[in-house]
Amino acid sequence: MSFSKVFENGFAHDLLPSTDDQHEGVIVDNLEFTAPMGPEVFGARLRASISEWKRKGKKGVWIKFPLGLVNLVESAIKEGFVYHHAEPSYLMMTYWIPESPCTLPANASHRVRIGAIVFNDKGELLVVQEKSGILRGTGLWKIPTGMVDEDEDIEAAAIREVKEETGIDTEFKEILLFRQSHKAFFDKSELFFLCILRPLSFDVQKQELEIEAAQWLSLEEFAAQPYAQHNDLGECITNLCLARANHDYSQFIPVVAPTRSISDRGLQYVYLNAKTLLSGQSF
Amino acid sequence: MSFSKVFENGFAHDLLPSTDDQHEGVIVDNLEFTAPMGPEVFGARLRASISEWKRKGKKGVWIKFPLGLVNLVESAIKEGFVYHHAEPSYLMMTYWIPESPCTLPANASHRVRIGAIVFNDKGELLVVQEKSGILRGTGLWKIPTGMVDEDEDIEAAAIREVKEETGIDTEFKEILLFRQSHKAFFDKSELFFLCILRPLSFDVQKQELEIEAAQWLSLEEFAAQPYAQHNDLGECITNLCLARANHDYSQFIPVVAPTRSISDRGLQYVYLNAKTLLSGQSF
Repeated sequence: MSFSKVFENGFAHDLLPSTDDQHEGVIVDNLEFTAPMGPEVFGARLRASISEWKRKGKKGVWIKFPLGLVNLVESAIKEGFVYHHAEPSYLMMTYWIPESPCTLPANASHRVRIGAIVFNDKGELLVVQEKSGILRGTGLWKIPTGMVDEDEDIEAAAIREVKEETGIDTEFKEILLFRQSHKAFFDKSELFFLCILRPLSFDVQKQELEIEAAQWLSLEEFAAQPYAQHNDLGECITNLCLARANHDYSQFIPVVAPTRSISDRGLQYVYLNAKTLLSGQSF
Repeated sequence: MSFSKVFENGFAHDLLPSTDDQHEGVIVDNLEFTAPMGPEVFGARLRASISEWKRKGKKGVWIKFPLGLVNLVESAIKEGFVYHHAEPSYLMMTYWIPESPCTLPANASHRVRIGAIVFNDKGELLVVQEKSGILRGTGLWKIPTGMVDEDEDIEAAAIREVKEETGIDTEFKEILLFRQSHKAFFDKSELFFLCILRPLSFDVQKQELEIEAAQWLSLEEFAAQPYAQHNDLGECITNLCLARANHDYSQFIPVVAPTRSISDRGLQYVYLNAKTLLSGQSF
């Protein structure tokens, strides 16, 4: 963290506290711990800081504004900063110093969703009807689906969504397939992972807030629904379930990757084709 | 779009222009086309609008602030709005009206990256050294990697990154595996897809901006690097390449999903295990 002063038009300005990143850039992410300042003082310190960073050959600048410091954002925009991303409690803005094209990484680009295929011992599929969304009021049955949260594993999300929507406890088995689509959520793209889970309980308890109905349904009844027949996923589910019954489909299953990675992000999961693992390859 | 007035403290306030969404919420995304207003007028109109939305039983409220209307953001925060997401040119804020828990979908949660495995006819691997990042200056060779852009297909991203970093034209073959990790980029999670591509040209022309060096390297030399031996991905690449040479690994390949989906998001790709397709299942 560097604290220093530079002179601009004869006046000394404290530089903003910043740390260097691994890409010849700087990060200002402790604004809430500096002495309170108004937009004009902040603007002057920002201009002085940019001069200093430029002199040092820095490239990208990241500034994190907590919700409470929204009054400083306009000053940053005046200096040429743009929005990079935002979370409920803060706004991240960026500025690219060099003349060369900006190589700052883009904002998170995708959301990830899961669909859960859960069969009971009678070969019935666990299905729900949702209270909102495009299928609301249609009476059509679908498999439980939901968002994978930031920082959540795909398999944990599948287990959580099934539990939340139907009350059924499950264990994760495999990822059958995934689908990529675009403009799924504003301009964001989406990866949808279709998972197979094994039920550990069988008494359906639907969630009141978002679920209209939940039950076990025969695959024949599921496949006979008009929507399932005319929808890519409904058809895929039926075909893949049949293929799986014939044992001619190899799914992706997660294995914990070797933890000798030089990055320290905790456990990482690698998804591999099941047959490769079963054939004794060592990963 | 609804335009109307309500009375608050005896004064008529124009409501903000809004459209309904499919989840009993409203979206205000045309603020730049309404008559200019200061923070106080905006705050009054926002309060009046929230009262009206509440009366109608609305739940989630979305307001999009273009970069030029940052002066109104503080008023929204005062009314209880929080940041939802931001792109370079705008900030999206949300507010949840009911007493029940907020069910608004979260911001995009993941970034998606690719790694590209490209072998030439001599069985040599296409490798690069990067000018920045944690491997800078180590002299270690790695496969080309890069971000999948919003709205970009995984296979298109792999082809683009190989071309950008090495000048080599390729065609996409398969996804070998994918890896999920967390806290990869600020608090965002990451899915990393390891892809195989076939080269259509062989003359390496490295990119000046981000690449230190690029060349074809034997798999033996690649695998013998200290980093490759102690890194999950380097090891995976070597093992999978060997497994693939023995034809006992089935990869995921993209097929265009049936376009009869009731959503209208254009073509959607589904990734399936190759053997299922080859065995004549119809999708």
